[in-house]
Amino acid sequence: MDSLWTDRIAAGALGMRSSAIRDLLKLTTQPDMISFAGGLPAPELFPTEEIAAASEQALVEAPLATLQYGPTEGFAPLREMVAGWVGRLGLSVPADQVLITAGSQQGLDMIGRLLIDPGAPVAIEEITYLGALQAWQTCQPNYLRLPIDEGGLDVEALAALLAGGARPRFLYIVSCFQNPTGVTLAPERRARLVELAARYSLPIVEDDPYGELYYEGQRTTPLAALDIAMHGEPRHVVYLGTLSKLLAPGLRVGWIVAPRPLLDQLVMLKQGLDLHTGSMAQAVAYYACRDGLLDQHIPRIRALYGERRDAMLAALAGERAMPAGTRWTRPGGGMFLWLTLPEQIEAEALLERALAQKVAFVPGHQFHPGGGGANTMRLNFSHSGPAQIVEGVRRLGAALWAGA
Amino acid sequence: MDSLWTDRIAAGALGMRSSAIRDLLKLTTQPDMISFAGGLPAPELFPTEEIAAASEQALVEAPLATLQYGPTEGFAPLREMVAGWVGRLGLSVPADQVLITAGSQQGLDMIGRLLIDPGAPVAIEEITYLGALQAWQTCQPNYLRLPIDEGGLDVEALAALLAGGARPRFLYIVSCFQNPTGVTLAPERRARLVELAARYSLPIVEDDPYGELYYEGQRTTPLAALDIAMHGEPRHVVYLGTLSKLLAPGLRVGWIVAPRPLLDQLVMLKQGLDLHTGSMAQAVAYYACRDGLLDQHIPRIRALYGERRDAMLAALAGERAMPAGTRWTRPGGGMFLWLTLPEQIEAEALLERALAQKVAFVPGHQFHPGGGGANTMRLNFSHSGPAQIVEGVRRLGAALWAGA
Repeated sequence: MDSLWTDRIAAGALGMRSSAIRDLLKLTTQPDMISFAGGLPAPELFPTEEIAAASEQALVEAPLATLQYGPTEGFAPLREMVAGWVGRLGLSVPADQVLITAGSQQGLDMIGRLLIDPGAPVAIEEITYLGALQAWQTCQPNYLRLPIDEGGLDVEALAALLAGGARPRFLYIVSCFQNPTGVTLAPERRARLVELAARYSLPIVEDDPYGELYYEGQRTTPLAALDIAMHGEPRHVVYLGTLSKLLAPGLRVGWIVAPRPLLDQLVMLKQGLDLHTGSMAQAVAYYACRDGLLDQHIPRIRALYGERRDAMLAALAGERAMPAGTRWTRPGGGMFLWLTLPEQIEAEALLERALAQKVAFVPGHQFHPGGGGANTMRLNFSHSGPAQIVEGVRRLGAALWAGA
Repeated sequence: MDSLWTDRIAAGALGMRSSAIRDLLKLTTQPDMISFAGGLPAPELFPTEEIAAASEQALVEAPLATLQYGPTEGFAPLREMVAGWVGRLGLSVPADQVLITAGSQQGLDMIGRLLIDPGAPVAIEEITYLGALQAWQTCQPNYLRLPIDEGGLDVEALAALLAGGARPRFLYIVSCFQNPTGVTLAPERRARLVELAARYSLPIVEDDPYGELYYEGQRTTPLAALDIAMHGEPRHVVYLGTLSKLLAPGLRVGWIVAPRPLLDQLVMLKQGLDLHTGSMAQAVAYYACRDGLLDQHIPRIRALYGERRDAMLAALAGERAMPAGTRWTRPGGGMFLWLTLPEQIEAEALLERALAQKVAFVPGHQFHPGGGGANTMRLNFSHSGPAQIVEGVRRLGAALWAGA
């Protein structure tokens, strides 16, 4: 029976693997498990009442736009709203350069299908978002892996690559509070990167789901804004954003701001993918946010997640919490930090002991498409309260000593 | 500027074209236009109040399932509900063989990506659903086009093809009230087709969005039910269903019932596509339908659309309504009928004159991937009231005489 279907799997899909994170997440739903594994927003912050009110408004005021088929490009008032929103970040674009997607995950999928031929070079950070790698599995790119450090992507390494003649289809970068490491591309590197893009005609795919979630300082200017400032319109940077971390992921509402020739192609592709993003989700998002909900709501997210980040940093720094030689990032925002254990400790093996102690994390090797990172892990701090974080770090320590 | 992006388009996406229907639909939104062009359900039937109540219930009773990230496979109670629903049609499957998709359009996209290599043979009806062709554009199949008639697919033509050694990756078929022709695969052809599938190990992709919309007789038994009856489980048939025509398309909630080895692959693929279908849309669909709404609602749809179909058939049959030699199908259900003009009349040229008369349709050549059908058109009867239908047919006649 199996061979009837498995004999017919297309070449690109043959090597497809399940997301280890999504499989791991199924293990972490036990009520007594403290999970630092997922990338989940804190549900206690979901603006449930506002969303309920928005659903009612949408169905009363715009029943057609909420329930009928809609344009592939997205619900026009939502596109306007997103254009206004990204405009405040310096992405001055008309609403017709905004395409609404089913979360930014769909944006990644579409970009891969449009720009990656099998074997084509694609530049990525050596530690990067697993969902992008998964989206592009069937496209079979040849990854050019670039180092990252506390200042984000090593842009000079990219410059050397380009100077050496490499011509990647595009560079993929999570520019703020990167998943999984929490690092942010430094401002001077941003300027240099946009300059390199212009010099070498390098397309950049900027994934920015976390940029609003800063717990100190200010909103970092997206690469897309620098690109627009340089050229007067989006030229080298495609920008992906989402409401998943700002409102609620269950809506699956994201967006792409793209140079016009690419946008036209993305719209054509999306027609075949799903006709359009859910009308109701788009209408609910619009009615929930049109009167400024995000301006009130995002500061609440920042306050809560900032507290949780601090709780995790403090717990990790506690006396004998972690083995000597353990290092971790100190992200200025986002949802994750990145922990590097002493070299002899394998995070994958540790995970088994940690699950026995009822604490979960994601072993870091999974985020390394080129291998390596066996002694690293990603820790999420947005989903658990401070007391849980303290207890979870204690359990993690117990798992570490149990294996020592 | 253009070449920065267009030089990098992947080979599979290079020949991509926009859906002419979706482009045409933009022309038909003028208030005085009578459109037989779209495939839109009648919005006056949307159960808006029930959906509003369901949104509230979902957010109160299951806020996490409504707003948080969810499993790729879909919202478990909805999968159970769909399993029960398709079970009544003879698809006895456990809920874990139901995958929730973003409308059945996403199901088509996923099946193409999973099963079509460039150049691979795929058997289709010679006149078929444009959205499937669009979904598979980037996969570049080699279509084997099979004739259809009033009894649906000519299954003996398929038998001859298979006997001659052809081994398509799969057969794609809209089995009831096909889009665009309105024809339904006859019962004896169904039995024969499932037998052929078993004999030649032929996978069948059965797309069944319209099966519940019958205006005479009874629900036709899906091919998938016959396959399960023969083998005790889904073996050769993947079945695609959707709430788009039964509840509201704006939710974008559909499903795939698939043989297990294929289902596992589809889930892996969907992880990368969009993580999962919108949580809120799924929860709203579940809460709206769990107490039997569809059993009350679908008869209302049947009554209304049946009346509209009859109005269109009567108007077309009116004296001097259509030129001598014009033929049309008499569908037992669904949303479309198929009209064949005398051979010398080109529907594409007629469309221009029809738009001037404020009536729209889709020229039939668009549904012919192999060319032909210049004198055919698809007429939708679900979206316009009887008086509009009468007036629209009158305008269509006026456009025909204007060109004579």
